[in-house]
Amino acid sequence: MSRLDTSKYCVGREEKRKDRFRLRDVKTDDDGGLEKDAGKAAFERAHARLIELQQLFYADGRFALCVVFQAMDTGGKDGTIRDVFGGVNPAGCRVTSFKAPNDVELRHDFLWRIHQHTPRLGHFAVFNRSHYEDVLVARVKKLVPSERWKPRFEHINTFERMLFDEGTRIVKFLLHISRDYQRERLLRRLHDPAKQWKFDPQDVAERARWDDYQQAYEEVLNRCSTAAAPWYVVPAEHHWFRNLLVTQVLVETIESLPLAYPKPSFDPSRIVID
Amino acid sequence: MSRLDTSKYCVGREEKRKDRFRLRDVKTDDDGGLEKDAGKAAFERAHARLIELQQLFYADGRFALCVVFQAMDTGGKDGTIRDVFGGVNPAGCRVTSFKAPNDVELRHDFLWRIHQHTPRLGHFAVFNRSHYEDVLVARVKKLVPSERWKPRFEHINTFERMLFDEGTRIVKFLLHISRDYQRERLLRRLHDPAKQWKFDPQDVAERARWDDYQQAYEEVLNRCSTAAAPWYVVPAEHHWFRNLLVTQVLVETIESLPLAYPKPSFDPSRIVID
Repeated sequence: MSRLDTSKYCVGREEKRKDRFRLRDVKTDDDGGLEKDAGKAAFERAHARLIELQQLFYADGRFALCVVFQAMDTGGKDGTIRDVFGGVNPAGCRVTSFKAPNDVELRHDFLWRIHQHTPRLGHFAVFNRSHYEDVLVARVKKLVPSERWKPRFEHINTFERMLFDEGTRIVKFLLHISRDYQRERLLRRLHDPAKQWKFDPQDVAERARWDDYQQAYEEVLNRCSTAAAPWYVVPAEHHWFRNLLVTQVLVETIESLPLAYPKPSFDPSRIVID
Repeated sequence: MSRLDTSKYCVGREEKRKDRFRLRDVKTDDDGGLEKDAGKAAFERAHARLIELQQLFYADGRFALCVVFQAMDTGGKDGTIRDVFGGVNPAGCRVTSFKAPNDVELRHDFLWRIHQHTPRLGHFAVFNRSHYEDVLVARVKKLVPSERWKPRFEHINTFERMLFDEGTRIVKFLLHISRDYQRERLLRRLHDPAKQWKFDPQDVAERARWDDYQQAYEEVLNRCSTAAAPWYVVPAEHHWFRNLLVTQVLVETIESLPLAYPKPSFDPSRIVID
């Protein structure tokens, strides 16, 4: 059975394309040519493998993993985190949701609050939104002048490179949906009593800036997908496909590392337990 | 089908006993009179209920939950956390492992580092070891003089009461094993290449202080099991029973709260999504 080719979804890795990456070239309802049942089964296998690998990753203790999720509202960040990282041993996995910065955070550089949540060695850190908001919402809503956000692309690349050099592997996912799909999801959220609490009337105003956000995302993808910290664009309308693609990328990332259980620093045959 | 009676395992809740609680009165291999298969099935149901309740708990956002695990080495803290909290949405659950305090932490009061990890409203915090080490290992190994650790029981009760009054529900579990069981587990850890890295030769020295630790635990249980923050003694040699008892206590704790999905602050019928 052939594995899903994840490199197709990695920005800048596709061999033939040298020109600018465009979001509209990625179908939001792509299913990788898989049937739903086969895709779900493949996800279950990849998920079991991720759980198995995490134990070794934790024991090895020489690397850390930082997983970034960005998306338009209703893109499925919460659901992806629940589906992919639920089941992973929570002792080695921390999720941080970055909301609008508070007063203290705004009085620091944009990476200050992020840095406090980067993973320790052996651990996974999962970011629900991230420092990328500071070149997305900050730009689209003009929260800072352009002289402030324009240098941030390079600062991000340098920061992520430093993390990489110190042992952290970084994988970034944009959960990619269409404007029509968002409409359908917002309506569902609005009229389901168990989901209504997640609805923020502000989301409607954000939706009006759809094209500005898509353009801001394209600049992020073109400037900040690096060998040290690649961006993946995940067609996110089929949840089973989204889960499979994300999980498989994580499995491949961890499998590429030279992990091993640490050798004991003592001679087991000389230990006496009475 | 009758539920397991969890109150039997709660220190100070048993109606008839007014005298001092003694650890040796609790069988470490107690199985609650259940068959293994029935117990495992009951755990699966309780676990599914816990996952369901967490979503409501998170949405409600008026309470937090702090779950403390203490045990002798090989008591199963890691395994319990993996089995009970794996599957829970990691976006609302943080595990903190408290190791020996570092230089900075030692220059603060014993609750300082703990307080930094208490849960935010809507979240679970899981403590793998806790402030109780400061009246256990600190006492048994004489890391601080008795004038220092003796007042800590009252400080702990007051601290936990404050957390309770501010919305945090606290549940504390001692995973209770026998000295013979520990021997068997240490030997297994020592000779299994995938577990050897968890073996610390220092564990053997700690084992020699078994009786001192049991006595220190008894004082903890007798002095710090309060209505605001009860201690449960969990017979932990049958993992399925341990998992069931812990999960059911958590489910009952959450079910006792008046949780509800927040009402929207807007009129859904007036929202237009184009």
